[in-house]
Amino acid sequence: MKVLSFGEMLLRLKTPGNERIIQAQAFEATYGGAEANVAVSLALLGNEVSYLSKLPNNPLGQGAKSTLRKYGVDTSELLIGGDRLGIYFFEKGASVRSTNVVYDRAYSAFSQVERNEFDWPTIFKDVDYFYFSGITPAISSDLEQAVLDACEYCKQQGIPVVCDLNYRAKMWSPEQAQKVISKIMNYVTICIAHDEDFEATLGIKAFDGDSSRGIEQKESFKAAMKQVQTDYPNCKMVASILRNIYSVESSQWTALLLKDGTFHETAAYDMHVMEGVAAGDAFGAGLLHGLLHDYPTDKLVKFALAASVLKLTVTGDLNLVSDAEINQVMETTGGSRLAR
Amino acid sequence: MKVLSFGEMLLRLKTPGNERIIQAQAFEATYGGAEANVAVSLALLGNEVSYLSKLPNNPLGQGAKSTLRKYGVDTSELLIGGDRLGIYFFEKGASVRSTNVVYDRAYSAFSQVERNEFDWPTIFKDVDYFYFSGITPAISSDLEQAVLDACEYCKQQGIPVVCDLNYRAKMWSPEQAQKVISKIMNYVTICIAHDEDFEATLGIKAFDGDSSRGIEQKESFKAAMKQVQTDYPNCKMVASILRNIYSVESSQWTALLLKDGTFHETAAYDMHVMEGVAAGDAFGAGLLHGLLHDYPTDKLVKFALAASVLKLTVTGDLNLVSDAEINQVMETTGGSRLAR
Amino acid sequence: MKVLSFGEMLLRLKTPGNERIIQAQAFEATYGGAEANVAVSLALLGNEVSYLSKLPNNPLGQGAKSTLRKYGVDTSELLIGGDRLGIYFFEKGASVRSTNVVYDRAYSAFSQVERNEFDWPTIFKDVDYFYFSGITPAISSDLEQAVLDACEYCKQQGIPVVCDLNYRAKMWSPEQAQKVISKIMNYVTICIAHDEDFEATLGIKAFDGDSSRGIEQKESFKAAMKQVQTDYPNCKMVASILRNIYSVESSQWTALLLKDGTFHETAAYDMHVMEGVAAGDAFGAGLLHGLLHDYPTDKLVKFALAASVLKLTVTGDLNLVSDAEINQVMETTGGSRLAR
Amino acid sequence: MKVLSFGEMLLRLKTPGNERIIQAQAFEATYGGAEANVAVSLALLGNEVSYLSKLPNNPLGQGAKSTLRKYGVDTSELLIGGDRLGIYFFEKGASVRSTNVVYDRAYSAFSQVERNEFDWPTIFKDVDYFYFSGITPAISSDLEQAVLDACEYCKQQGIPVVCDLNYRAKMWSPEQAQKVISKIMNYVTICIAHDEDFEATLGIKAFDGDSSRGIEQKESFKAAMKQVQTDYPNCKMVASILRNIYSVESSQWTALLLKDGTFHETAAYDMHVMEGVAAGDAFGAGLLHGLLHDYPTDKLVKFALAASVLKLTVTGDLNLVSDAEINQVMETTGGSRLAR
Amino acid sequence: MKVLSFGEMLLRLKTPGNERIIQAQAFEATYGGAEANVAVSLALLGNEVSYLSKLPNNPLGQGAKSTLRKYGVDTSELLIGGDRLGIYFFEKGASVRSTNVVYDRAYSAFSQVERNEFDWPTIFKDVDYFYFSGITPAISSDLEQAVLDACEYCKQQGIPVVCDLNYRAKMWSPEQAQKVISKIMNYVTICIAHDEDFEATLGIKAFDGDSSRGIEQKESFKAAMKQVQTDYPNCKMVASILRNIYSVESSQWTALLLKDGTFHETAAYDMHVMEGVAAGDAFGAGLLHGLLHDYPTDKLVKFALAASVLKLTVTGDLNLVSDAEINQVMETTGGSRLAR
Amino acid sequence: MKVLSFGEMLLRLKTPGNERIIQAQAFEATYGGAEANVAVSLALLGNEVSYLSKLPNNPLGQGAKSTLRKYGVDTSELLIGGDRLGIYFFEKGASVRSTNVVYDRAYSAFSQVERNEFDWPTIFKDVDYFYFSGITPAISSDLEQAVLDACEYCKQQGIPVVCDLNYRAKMWSPEQAQKVISKIMNYVTICIAHDEDFEATLGIKAFDGDSSRGIEQKESFKAAMKQVQTDYPNCKMVASILRNIYSVESSQWTALLLKDGTFHETAAYDMHVMEGVAAGDAFGAGLLHGLLHDYPTDKLVKFALAASVLKLTVTGDLNLVSDAEINQVMETTGGSRLAR
Repeated sequence: MKVLSFGEMLLRLKTPGNERIIQAQAFEATYGGAEANVAVSLALLGNEVSYLSKLPNNPLGQGAKSTLRKYGVDTSELLIGGDRLGIYFFEKGASVRSTNVVYDRAYSAFSQVERNEFDWPTIFKDVDYFYFSGITPAISSDLEQAVLDACEYCKQQGIPVVCDLNYRAKMWSPEQAQKVISKIMNYVTICIAHDEDFEATLGIKAFDGDSSRGIEQKESFKAAMKQVQTDYPNCKMVASILRNIYSVESSQWTALLLKDGTFHETAAYDMHVMEGVAAGDAFGAGLLHGLLHDYPTDKLVKFALAASVLKLTVTGDLNLVSDAEINQVMETTGGSRLAR
Repeated sequence: MKVLSFGEMLLRLKTPGNERIIQAQAFEATYGGAEANVAVSLALLGNEVSYLSKLPNNPLGQGAKSTLRKYGVDTSELLIGGDRLGIYFFEKGASVRSTNVVYDRAYSAFSQVERNEFDWPTIFKDVDYFYFSGITPAISSDLEQAVLDACEYCKQQGIPVVCDLNYRAKMWSPEQAQKVISKIMNYVTICIAHDEDFEATLGIKAFDGDSSRGIEQKESFKAAMKQVQTDYPNCKMVASILRNIYSVESSQWTALLLKDGTFHETAAYDMHVMEGVAAGDAFGAGLLHGLLHDYPTDKLVKFALAASVLKLTVTGDLNLVSDAEINQVMETTGGSRLAR
Repeated sequence: MKVLSFGEMLLRLKTPGNERIIQAQAFEATYGGAEANVAVSLALLGNEVSYLSKLPNNPLGQGAKSTLRKYGVDTSELLIGGDRLGIYFFEKGASVRSTNVVYDRAYSAFSQVERNEFDWPTIFKDVDYFYFSGITPAISSDLEQAVLDACEYCKQQGIPVVCDLNYRAKMWSPEQAQKVISKIMNYVTICIAHDEDFEATLGIKAFDGDSSRGIEQKESFKAAMKQVQTDYPNCKMVASILRNIYSVESSQWTALLLKDGTFHETAAYDMHVMEGVAAGDAFGAGLLHGLLHDYPTDKLVKFALAASVLKLTVTGDLNLVSDAEINQVMETTGGSRLAR
Repeated sequence: MKVLSFGEMLLRLKTPGNERIIQAQAFEATYGGAEANVAVSLALLGNEVSYLSKLPNNPLGQGAKSTLRKYGVDTSELLIGGDRLGIYFFEKGASVRSTNVVYDRAYSAFSQVERNEFDWPTIFKDVDYFYFSGITPAISSDLEQAVLDACEYCKQQGIPVVCDLNYRAKMWSPEQAQKVISKIMNYVTICIAHDEDFEATLGIKAFDGDSSRGIEQKESFKAAMKQVQTDYPNCKMVASILRNIYSVESSQWTALLLKDGTFHETAAYDMHVMEGVAAGDAFGAGLLHGLLHDYPTDKLVKFALAASVLKLTVTGDLNLVSDAEINQVMETTGGSRLAR
Repeated sequence: MKVLSFGEMLLRLKTPGNERIIQAQAFEATYGGAEANVAVSLALLGNEVSYLSKLPNNPLGQGAKSTLRKYGVDTSELLIGGDRLGIYFFEKGASVRSTNVVYDRAYSAFSQVERNEFDWPTIFKDVDYFYFSGITPAISSDLEQAVLDACEYCKQQGIPVVCDLNYRAKMWSPEQAQKVISKIMNYVTICIAHDEDFEATLGIKAFDGDSSRGIEQKESFKAAMKQVQTDYPNCKMVASILRNIYSVESSQWTALLLKDGTFHETAAYDMHVMEGVAAGDAFGAGLLHGLLHDYPTDKLVKFALAASVLKLTVTGDLNLVSDAEINQVMETTGGSRLAR
Repeated sequence: MKVLSFGEMLLRLKTPGNERIIQAQAFEATYGGAEANVAVSLALLGNEVSYLSKLPNNPLGQGAKSTLRKYGVDTSELLIGGDRLGIYFFEKGASVRSTNVVYDRAYSAFSQVERNEFDWPTIFKDVDYFYFSGITPAISSDLEQAVLDACEYCKQQGIPVVCDLNYRAKMWSPEQAQKVISKIMNYVTICIAHDEDFEATLGIKAFDGDSSRGIEQKESFKAAMKQVQTDYPNCKMVASILRNIYSVESSQWTALLLKDGTFHETAAYDMHVMEGVAAGDAFGAGLLHGLLHDYPTDKLVKFALAASVLKLTVTGDLNLVSDAEINQVMETTGGSRLAR
């Protein structure tokens, strides 16, 4: 069983600790990106996964590629070329000060890729699941087309399409997003959507009120999830994380999965958040891992959420945790003890 | 509109993370001091502000001056000379272990300044507000006199005097402080006082009981604030932060402002504190910024408190935040979300 | 009054911040070990204490010895020789991800020591208390014998024996532990046992249910403590920390001490935990310090617990705090304030 | 006397020590750029200098601006806007491995500036010298035009134009450079050219043979310098550093200045190079400083070279040295001693 | 064309900068080992290479494996199991103070491997060259036997055997080494030997006098190299680096290769050494790369030496350089210039 | 055999790498001081040594004391009290840029000590050698008197007095120094003087010409050394390091010792200097170690110089080397090889 993940990888430059960018004299350098994060998670969990993107042929492109290889992702389909690797500067917030991201991703090698550089029949050889997030089509119109080409190919071949809607307000407006995503959703078999994704990319309201109180609005989320399947009957499964966010460090996490008309729901985790990025990618990877291993639906969403909350305890974009650790968190009822 | 801020700038040497001084093999070096912090905040918020102090003509004095310039403070009035820059060693506490400061500020260039080195008419040219804290007169009798000289000049020129009482037990006793501050208060137009400042510098009790439960003693604080105006009728405004302190990391913050017989009160922030210093200076700067921009009194105290709690999320003495960020915190009702 | 502490010292290699070992490009290096930690605490509190172990004659052994000397521990009884210093890799957890330890301590110089290398009459000259933990006899059968030899000598000389049972599941099984510890307990005057120590090393159940909710099971603990004295009448005092553990960062701490049929109990501390290791050693050292200074029993356990919770705020194995700081924590009713 | 310096400022991201980019987990962040470096040097030497560029309105643009202010450069003429700050990644070589730069400067705010954004009469108010390097016109055709506009304005106003030809092979070809530089040279009063600049930007050969043995080819350089003045009679002064380069760490430095038909030559420095960038900018700044203070021609070139070699001992793009230190190096005949 | 490299991988813990171990509060962590270094070099140069070893199933074993994957080495033949990863502590010398290594490699997973764990026919499938160094058989008698088994299999299959004699005095005595190596040499097709390797492992004197003046004793080396082929007629090629060592930082490097009775000799490099380890491994990898690409013999040894001296400029055990960089160093006659 | 070393210990704050103070965001913290450095060296070499000074009772004073204990110095005679620990900021030079020290040592606890705080008969109990440097009497007149008191006591008791003249231009003028040192020299048995010490403290010219070319002026040094014994007949031995200094990194070192009318001279070391401080202290400690072990005079000066040049390879004030390493450097004729 093999997954293909398709998206952009960026150099992440994070200030040390909680420093602001203006006071930083150094940046911690790691590599990540929604679809790369999913690929690495799947590889770390022992799955076969190939990552498709375009990286420049310079030390930073090599750094990105090395990171994928380090964790066991197949990089043989990567396109090499173009001018630059996209960058994002990352400033971890604290308490009432939000975490902030400064994108410097325009004109990256991947953003300049042309639709016809992708030879889908070759790329999809032996692939059993196709994964991408809403970021990929937001990057350029060629990538929007490429995503649609890939989806069409998957439809023909019966390869399930998994999409995390992943709305990014700094990349496109809700109007732009909805126009594109509504086309893509016709191909999507499994849809992952969190928070503002419903409204921004699908025009479906999931929040009645305060967007930082998702768990309190579970019924509203359920309605939105049902609406997704009504609007896009090809979509067999909708999954979503719900959160109450109290501060940068403190939040509560739960998840919902809708399949065959039934909602599967997890218990809630009270989290002390060390770094609040890429938890959605970890959720998607957990879901895919469960699908690849035929987990019962209840376990599927529990495993995905446990993977997701573990990411909140790991620095960097990548969810460097093991299957055993995810299972341990799934089963935890109380606090964790030092093992020695 | 221009502010003059008058005080001492120190080299701050902080152990990495939460290390104790005895285990530190390095110190993080930044520069700060109550009045310099206020000046930097005002400059970052777009105001014109000049800082008056005396710095030694060595690389450390230059480091202090460069810090001021970096953030846009006018340094043309600085006196250069003397032997050393004062230092304070800073050890961040955790949970039940208090944050600790080791002062090494005696014999600094500023502490050796003579009263007659200040040419007030030149210094106060184009100045609209005068700011200092209770630390400045605590440093030496020449500085006590210099503060009084400056206040007298302000009185003549109609320049409002803003003073944060800022009691420092490691610098003087309540007896010494009260003797000096009572003279100064006759000139103060706007008085900022927190926690033990009321009792230590003015002899007015603000706490009935446990000093770590300020919010629970709001009535007692209100009485103290009224007493200030009774004792010093020249004081048109009294502002104060009230806190419940649960641990080094966890506290609740609110603020009171008394003007024209009316108390203006803010909502409370539940804070996860990253670094608990210079929040009072951030409050003072927020207040001054509001005064410079004729904020309504309600907004004045809200803005000041939002600036203050933001400081708790920034490392170093300087409140490196923007107007937009302060406004965002003022309006926040729930948790903050990552913007990307 | 002099204490002898007998055990193994390791090089601790910790990843920076909360990094996982697989992402670490550096390790912070410190030295520690249960009995060395107790020795350092006692020295820092002003007591005379000698540490007995075996260290290799290489830069790492010298590093361990230097650490002891730095904080004032007498190292004149140390054996020097053997091949390597034991190591443990330390990965600090976060929220739902447990702190983890990778032991690399096999074949250390101390583990290869022979029973007859210890000349007990010389070693115990002027010693008033003998301290070791359950780790020491777990290391090798020679060390099991050496501990028994030392205990027998203490019995002859009337030197009280203080033992922290300190069960380590990565070192031996409950069956192995119980076989050895039951012999040793016949010599123990003061027994310290936490959490799973009761069941794993003595076969006495202290938990009825969830092991992360110790405080909620106080009665069950009390019964276990009584059972210890019933089984081992030579044991005059049993002391134990009870914890409710909510997450890696958050837990509640209290302590019980049983002496002359009476339980002495402390108030509870709500802790934000910076680093959750060696708090048991800090407790033991606090207890010993109180014994050396004839503290009343109530103060004894309060002082020990205050020392213990302070350790949770200090990085590294060593509890680098002063007598004054422990006393301050003992007396704290509310939050702590910055002293400046 | 005031200088205007016109060019681009970049974020420099350097690997720690001599690490290669592919092994870096962090980058040291500083800000620089040829013309900004010259501006900072002039400010540190006590001169009035304004820097003209365009910086984006984001934390990185603010970081660049803050750096200028920190060291006393006037930033009031800076344009603020555009999308991104240019970046260069910097990998320090060692021995036979060359230092390497990865440019990521395309599409920067400055590269997108339009010719008509510059209001030259306002910008040149009170300016006595105009400085730029060959990098500025290499960035875009609008900047080529802007440079020519500025030069034309200087010609009209009699403001001397100082240009360091500063050829960058990664930015343009010799053909492209020569076409542009030949136009600009008609306005240049003082021309600085090193190494391959003569041939690449002017088509004048300065090297007979091995380009790493400049000092051995002094006569060839002299002929090239004369040819410059023959080709561009408006050019009153030509200055050049000559180097023998033995390895990344080891080189020999001397300088030539041609004025009024006479060559002024310095003694040679045998340098242990700590960081081999921006030494040419330091030379240009030294020259300008000398011009601003009417140094005799001999002293002019000696001072410039001393400033230049000092830069080889300072990390970062900026030559953080004082007038006194440059003078000390000028006068040094032997080794330097620790002053204490 | 594929290479199999067989040996042990260690965790290298280096003090920061030139710190001594006793003053280190941190260690930089990388992974390496002679045969792993060769494998990584070959992969970075674009060759197919598989690495055979045994790594423990813990985070450190995973770190070692990840490092191999990161740089493109095939890890599918790795054995996983055993208790610990070997460690070496590394202290970089300076000037007259030698670089020092503290081995802590005993009882590693690889050292405990059993001869019969290796299934040579499977392992050698599609392998064209077999590489190991003299360290592998020095580790244990099972590994001595395994090496001989592998050699025997290679002999049967006509796979050339490349061995770097790599004597380690801290692992075995000359007597022990000679007994084993003399057996192995009967299978070796290409022998690499430096410095004391000739005498310690083969009993052939290469030095007449001062071992730090190898280049001055070239004739003596040539005689030794001839003697190798006389003693072991199966050895078709002998290659050796010769060095004059002036200090930790300064040495001169040249190389000799003997084939078909002819000596091929390189020019000499005067090196400023940044880190003097693993240069021999880089030489071996360069040689193998040349063999895989049928380089003429002259180019073979020049390429290998250029690869080797480049390693002296790279920190860590791995020679992170490209084909292009090695070629540039091969062709360099003078100093290197910054490329920008 | 026991040594007493008497002087001041400072906190040294060094910028990372070769950074200038104005660019430093951190300082590396170590503790040192001429006489403390000598004490630590002696302890590391296995000698009994006690250090006499006064340290403040705060975390920095405790840090200084801990450093002494760490390396085995007896701290039982230390006075504890006073206000602050002296500090020096340290900026490592490079090539032509000198290393620089910013003293911030005024008003330290030791500088405020009173003559009568020292109880010499108790302090000198069991002491066989008394060591101090010219820095101690330069600090205050009370310390000048204390040194004379101690010398007088030594004279009475027949304890040899070893003094390193150690002139510090930032502490006193030659006139002031000569007045004091001439009194002290009457008691000195063994005098160590380098570089400008002869002229500045004794008024004896040792340099005919360029002070950076000491070795070239050996005869002049010899004459000066003889003159010392002529002027102060009590002085039985004069020892001196002679250096040619080529740059911060490069210098040549040799030493002279005059005893019984005979000069003992060492070979010269060509040094690559990593950190050029405290080498004189290492020389003094080497001399004392040789005296304590009755080395023949030739070996005495060779050992002292080898210890001294080794210090140039160690960061921090302390010469963290072993007896074996010093002996190895004494015997080295060529370059050093990596031991593994």
